[in-house]
Amino acid sequence: MALKPVADRVIVKYFETEDKTASGIVLPDSSKEKTQQAEVIAVGGGKVVDGKEVPVQVKPGDRVIYGKYTGTEIKYEGEKYLVINADDIIAIVKD
Amino acid sequence: MALKPVADRVIVKYFETEDKTASGIVLPDSSKEKTQQAEVIAVGGGKVVDGKEVPVQVKPGDRVIYGKYTGTEIKYEGEKYLVINADDIIAIVKD
Amino acid sequence: MALKPVADRVIVKYFETEDKTASGIVLPDSSKEKTQQAEVIAVGGGKVVDGKEVPVQVKPGDRVIYGKYTGTEIKYEGEKYLVINADDIIAIVKD
Amino acid sequence: MALKPVADRVIVKYFETEDKTASGIVLPDSSKEKTQQAEVIAVGGGKVVDGKEVPVQVKPGDRVIYGKYTGTEIKYEGEKYLVINADDIIAIVKD
Amino acid sequence: MALKPVADRVIVKYFETEDKTASGIVLPDSSKEKTQQAEVIAVGGGKVVDGKEVPVQVKPGDRVIYGKYTGTEIKYEGEKYLVINADDIIAIVKD
Amino acid sequence: MALKPVADRVIVKYFETEDKTASGIVLPDSSKEKTQQAEVIAVGGGKVVDGKEVPVQVKPGDRVIYGKYTGTEIKYEGEKYLVINADDIIAIVKD
Amino acid sequence: MALKPVADRVIVKYFETEDKTASGIVLPDSSKEKTQQAEVIAVGGGKVVDGKEVPVQVKPGDRVIYGKYTGTEIKYEGEKYLVINADDIIAIVKD
Repeated sequence: MALKPVADRVIVKYFETEDKTASGIVLPDSSKEKTQQAEVIAVGGGKVVDGKEVPVQVKPGDRVIYGKYTGTEIKYEGEKYLVINADDIIAIVKD
Repeated sequence: MALKPVADRVIVKYFETEDKTASGIVLPDSSKEKTQQAEVIAVGGGKVVDGKEVPVQVKPGDRVIYGKYTGTEIKYEGEKYLVINADDIIAIVKD
Repeated sequence: MALKPVADRVIVKYFETEDKTASGIVLPDSSKEKTQQAEVIAVGGGKVVDGKEVPVQVKPGDRVIYGKYTGTEIKYEGEKYLVINADDIIAIVKD
Repeated sequence: MALKPVADRVIVKYFETEDKTASGIVLPDSSKEKTQQAEVIAVGGGKVVDGKEVPVQVKPGDRVIYGKYTGTEIKYEGEKYLVINADDIIAIVKD
Repeated sequence: MALKPVADRVIVKYFETEDKTASGIVLPDSSKEKTQQAEVIAVGGGKVVDGKEVPVQVKPGDRVIYGKYTGTEIKYEGEKYLVINADDIIAIVKD
Repeated sequence: MALKPVADRVIVKYFETEDKTASGIVLPDSSKEKTQQAEVIAVGGGKVVDGKEVPVQVKPGDRVIYGKYTGTEIKYEGEKYLVINADDIIAIVKD
Repeated sequence: MALKPVADRVIVKYFETEDKTASGIVLPDSSKEKTQQAEVIAVGGGKVVDGKEVPVQVKPGDRVIYGKYTGTEIKYEGEKYLVINADDIIAIVKD
């Protein structure tokens, strides 16, 4: 992808229309408006904390759950993406 | 479990319908709407503080009491879980 | 006790109905609704500050005065307790 | 005194009814409701900052001026006291 | 350029009237009022964090996406620019 | 003076009724209600930052300009003083 | 100048009535009420961060752009000045 996130930001592609994902996670009714699961597309180089760069804990291809109502939507070559902070990712879906 | 929490997050399975748990804890009336006791299902790798990773102080299988009105609800394979921050756990129930 | 507080949390048993305690402390009228004196039942392992664990400054059996309108009430084997942060304890009653 | 303040807390005995104290300080009209001068009765062991304990800069017997509308009132053996943070003391009255 | 940003500030020239940029990024409808893509014109020397200067992660000529409703508009020799903080840049567009 | 400020506090004597001071500073109209210039009477020992005591940058006798609407007024032997934080001093008037 | 700013404060002389300055910067209409360009008159010794004094990055004579609606106005020998924090300077105008 031609977009490189800065610092600890993460670009994700989220699943907007599915109620139940392939891996079996169903988000509860109250969160139906905007699905919270997504695939990581690109990650930044990490956040500098106390003079050390702390790398982002996810990598492209990871499936993640993130807090909804977070991040900035962008469109790239006809596709919608979301740019979120790494801290807004709450869990990784392991297969 | 196929969900791996990030950082200091903890996935718990809470007890929604019991008034009195096996270990004898009864939550007071004012907190009846949402039970505060839960079992730890999965924990993240810890939070980075001052350049050191501080591990989460609970482990899968622990029974914990946590502040209600906290965390994010998720559904996984038909079961409801709650993802909370380790800091929101106030006590561990020892048997 | 089977409850182990996490971090710098402290479980106390407070005195709800007495106006004057054995040690002679009377709380002023404006704080009559909820007595501020209590006995420490269990303490957590301490808070991590700048990479070092700072132990809680009170121990089980201590009588303490704490800021009212703080903490989380729990019931355990028919008794009510309060879980507070160690920082909310303002003084220890020495005999 | 049988009360030992925790951390950087200070127990003071304030002068409620005097308009002019022995040492000659008169508080301006706008602060008449609650006198800001007091005598230090007991001090805590200090606050931990960056891993070091910073001792409280006043000692029992000191006369101090403190910001009004601060602290927690307690009654002990029929006397009223105020528990304040050491940071709320703005000046010491030297004789 | 004769303007030198201070600290971690970045001067950018943004694209106000295009809906679709050359590199193919289209911002979603809700952000049409002010385009979020821009070219970096000048960067400051960096922010001092914990006694070390952390350099800005973008350089003049970079195309960046930044959070809208941020920064200060200035006019220089008839052209409008925006001065933003480096932290408000969320991604770099790689060609 | 018999008052010793604590930490980084500074006791100043301000000029309430003059529009133009001896050194030629006139405060603009919008700040006429309370003159911002004062003479330093006493200073505290300094603030502890990162384990080191940072001394106050002014000394008794200095004429200073400080932000209005700050500090605590006290009366001492018939005179009004103001206790401010050293950080609220914005400039020293050099003769 | 007889005024010495404290810490990281900067005294500037701003241009109130010009729409277009000599160096060619025109502030956009929305900022016409108070011009954002100024000349640095005097600078403080710097801010103490993590025990080290960080010097101010501008010097007397520099022309700077600063965020409007910031700082404190003072009058000195018939001239108006503005005292701002060094952090409120966003760019230096190089000739």
